[in-house]
Amino acid sequence: MDIQVLKTCIENKDEEGIKDFILPLHPSDIAKALTELEDTEQIIVFKFLPAEIASDVLLEVDEHTRERLISSISDKELIEVLAEMETDDAADVIAELPEDDAETVLDGISREEGVEVRKLLKYPEDSAGGIMQTELVSVSEDATVQETIEQVRAKSEDVPNIHNVFVTDNDGRFKGTVSLDKLILAKPHLSVHDIMNQETVRVTVDTDQEDVAKIFQKYDVVTLPVIDADGKLLGRITIDDVVDVVEEEIFEDFYKMAGLNTDERVLDPPSRSFKLRAPWLLLNLATAFLAASVVKVFEGTIQTVVTLAVFMPVVAGMGGNAATQTITVVVRGLALGELEFRHAKRVLLNQVIVGFANGILTGTAAVIVAHLFGISYTIGILLFLAMITNMIIAGFSGTVIPLILKWFKADPALSSAVFVTTCTDVGGFFSFLGLATLFLKYGYL
Amino acid sequence: MDIQVLKTCIENKDEEGIKDFILPLHPSDIAKALTELEDTEQIIVFKFLPAEIASDVLLEVDEHTRERLISSISDKELIEVLAEMETDDAADVIAELPEDDAETVLDGISREEGVEVRKLLKYPEDSAGGIMQTELVSVSEDATVQETIEQVRAKSEDVPNIHNVFVTDNDGRFKGTVSLDKLILAKPHLSVHDIMNQETVRVTVDTDQEDVAKIFQKYDVVTLPVIDADGKLLGRITIDDVVDVVEEEIFEDFYKMAGLNTDERVLDPPSRSFKLRAPWLLLNLATAFLAASVVKVFEGTIQTVVTLAVFMPVVAGMGGNAATQTITVVVRGLALGELEFRHAKRVLLNQVIVGFANGILTGTAAVIVAHLFGISYTIGILLFLAMITNMIIAGFSGTVIPLILKWFKADPALSSAVFVTTCTDVGGFFSFLGLATLFLKYGYL
Repeated sequence: MDIQVLKTCIENKDEEGIKDFILPLHPSDIAKALTELEDTEQIIVFKFLPAEIASDVLLEVDEHTRERLISSISDKELIEVLAEMETDDAADVIAELPEDDAETVLDGISREEGVEVRKLLKYPEDSAGGIMQTELVSVSEDATVQETIEQVRAKSEDVPNIHNVFVTDNDGRFKGTVSLDKLILAKPHLSVHDIMNQETVRVTVDTDQEDVAKIFQKYDVVTLPVIDADGKLLGRITIDDVVDVVEEEIFEDFYKMAGLNTDERVLDPPSRSFKLRAPWLLLNLATAFLAASVVKVFEGTIQTVVTLAVFMPVVAGMGGNAATQTITVVVRGLALGELEFRHAKRVLLNQVIVGFANGILTGTAAVIVAHLFGISYTIGILLFLAMITNMIIAGFSGTVIPLILKWFKADPALSSAVFVTTCTDVGGFFSFLGLATLFLKYGYL
Repeated sequence: MDIQVLKTCIENKDEEGIKDFILPLHPSDIAKALTELEDTEQIIVFKFLPAEIASDVLLEVDEHTRERLISSISDKELIEVLAEMETDDAADVIAELPEDDAETVLDGISREEGVEVRKLLKYPEDSAGGIMQTELVSVSEDATVQETIEQVRAKSEDVPNIHNVFVTDNDGRFKGTVSLDKLILAKPHLSVHDIMNQETVRVTVDTDQEDVAKIFQKYDVVTLPVIDADGKLLGRITIDDVVDVVEEEIFEDFYKMAGLNTDERVLDPPSRSFKLRAPWLLLNLATAFLAASVVKVFEGTIQTVVTLAVFMPVVAGMGGNAATQTITVVVRGLALGELEFRHAKRVLLNQVIVGFANGILTGTAAVIVAHLFGISYTIGILLFLAMITNMIIAGFSGTVIPLILKWFKADPALSSAVFVTTCTDVGGFFSFLGLATLFLKYGYL
């Protein structure tokens, strides 16, 4: 795909050329092509897309581009595009619109779908209700296999990826599912009740999307019925949505640990990245000054033995790295459900032991290297002791801080890194310079 | 689930009690229960599981437990358990066995399945071949709809989650797919060739699993045919395997950035964590000494103005944090394919601008706070300049280093953090202390 060709067509206002280039592409490739164009070019190209393709493209581009493209078309065009989407996707797009526009659009899309989308908009974005779709095939439990097949036929145009038929009682309460292969193989006059799977797992509409993803993985299912508190069937979640949820949730942890706003993207303009990052960097500055104030206490000691200043970064840096290792392992364990509170004592002990062992190893290595630097054995011993202490602090705080965040129902990844490295900075400087001060006082240094 | 009940049953050798507790559970819940038992207790419980449940449980437990459980049963029992697994899972388990055992087991499982598993074992674990299964329903393109349905019937016992029927020509070359809902709706005498989807995406057997996952997400498919270089159909990948791949790949990035071996788990014994972490910490020690040697160059300056030692950690720490933010955004962009080499110049410029802007902001804040610390304006100016410089270094190295790793086909997440924070440590100390030395020389300090 040579984007230059498309750019030339746009420049020459060659409408046929634009269409020939863009229309044969898969929607996700069109989305990719758009990201390589200037804003004004994007809008020109987008106008050439028929509603059914435009709807797929809108779902593939990033939030900013989507906003820009939507504001470039009329409400009427937007309504056409949204009508082509599945209800869950349409709800997601409408949720991003300003309130007035959202109302106009909801009024515009066909009465039935408007009602469905309105219902979906009530649910939080990251709940089962927020990711479910209302398109599904359902039959009453007294339907026959033949009637069920007819229902599949009737809905097959509107419902993509059917996978399962959902069975409900006459009050709409979820009773079970029948997979399509069972349906193919069953005798036509049988009651669907007799061939359905009644043990199907289900989720209530307020289940967190992270838990939904875990259920999919645990039970190896492809679709999951979503019910309300009375057991009524409201919608279904399909596994392709779960892939996105899994990706989103893990990257969120990643971002939170690095102190990033989860909305930042690599191609964002600098003004946006600056704004999103600044608050966390300012918080970091506060913690950095906390570490600095520890050093300040020992200014006199450093004045006397200036070599200490040379090795301060080694103690703090190694502690920080060991801490990052520990938090990462702990956060991953919590995210995947491998680590639970009842393991806390064991994991804490393990991490402290690992810290101690690595402290001995790297402390010894540090002393040897420091000796090659021509440093006295006394400072070597200080370095050795401070590194062990700080590695133990790293293991301890790297385990305890994410667990505490989790205990208070906060996200364990949430800036764990900043809190933990504050512990290792403060702990590292305090142990290294504090020990040095003691050594000085008793005449060993 | 009260694990104490189970433990008591084991202690009392109450076989019925163990069975009553464990057998009604879902295999993944059994796996979870096992992790809470002592090693010897695990083995006792595992012996009570019928082969079909044992096979699911083996796939749910972690690698160490799996190894332990497998070595607790006879080859004959293991063969029975493996025969219950899908070919891709059986191949994964066998790949973990010592070579001799693997041979015995392969000879043992039924001739046909043994051949299939042997074929799968040839493919790298992280390729399409490594994650595909050979269980699928395929028909020749001259089959009728009726014949295809009969084929589904014949295979429905052995092939879970059929979703699609794969259509091949007489040489076994992949031609297209028919989804089950299409099959239900088609007239029985039609040729499957007329209703199949010929545009189905496919992957060759050596495709990297990360690319496979991207194709699933891009084309929103539930199964993907795997073909060889001649276009022959070898197997299929189902979307539930992709969820695991996505999770695995992202967490690998996470781990690599923190300098962790991707095999480490939160419940590993300390001896293992120690061994896995030590090499990276030693590498880190080397880079920490690099930073220390920069400080050493300026020992004289620190001796004269000891307050510099107090603010060294602020400059280095803020640079490190800004760098971590940049790398995380860049690594995520590369992992998701949002960032490509052609964006490099733009992203580099953006990140440097963000670094500069955040340098001005946090530098100013730092000067104000330093002033409250009672620090002279001259040192304030030094701090301000060094922080801006270091934030720019952070933006530059945080972008360039992952891109260079990617350019050389290495994983961009691979210890990016250690390289980049080395840059900000060295850069931070050099700019802060270097500027201070200049100020001193010209009498401003």
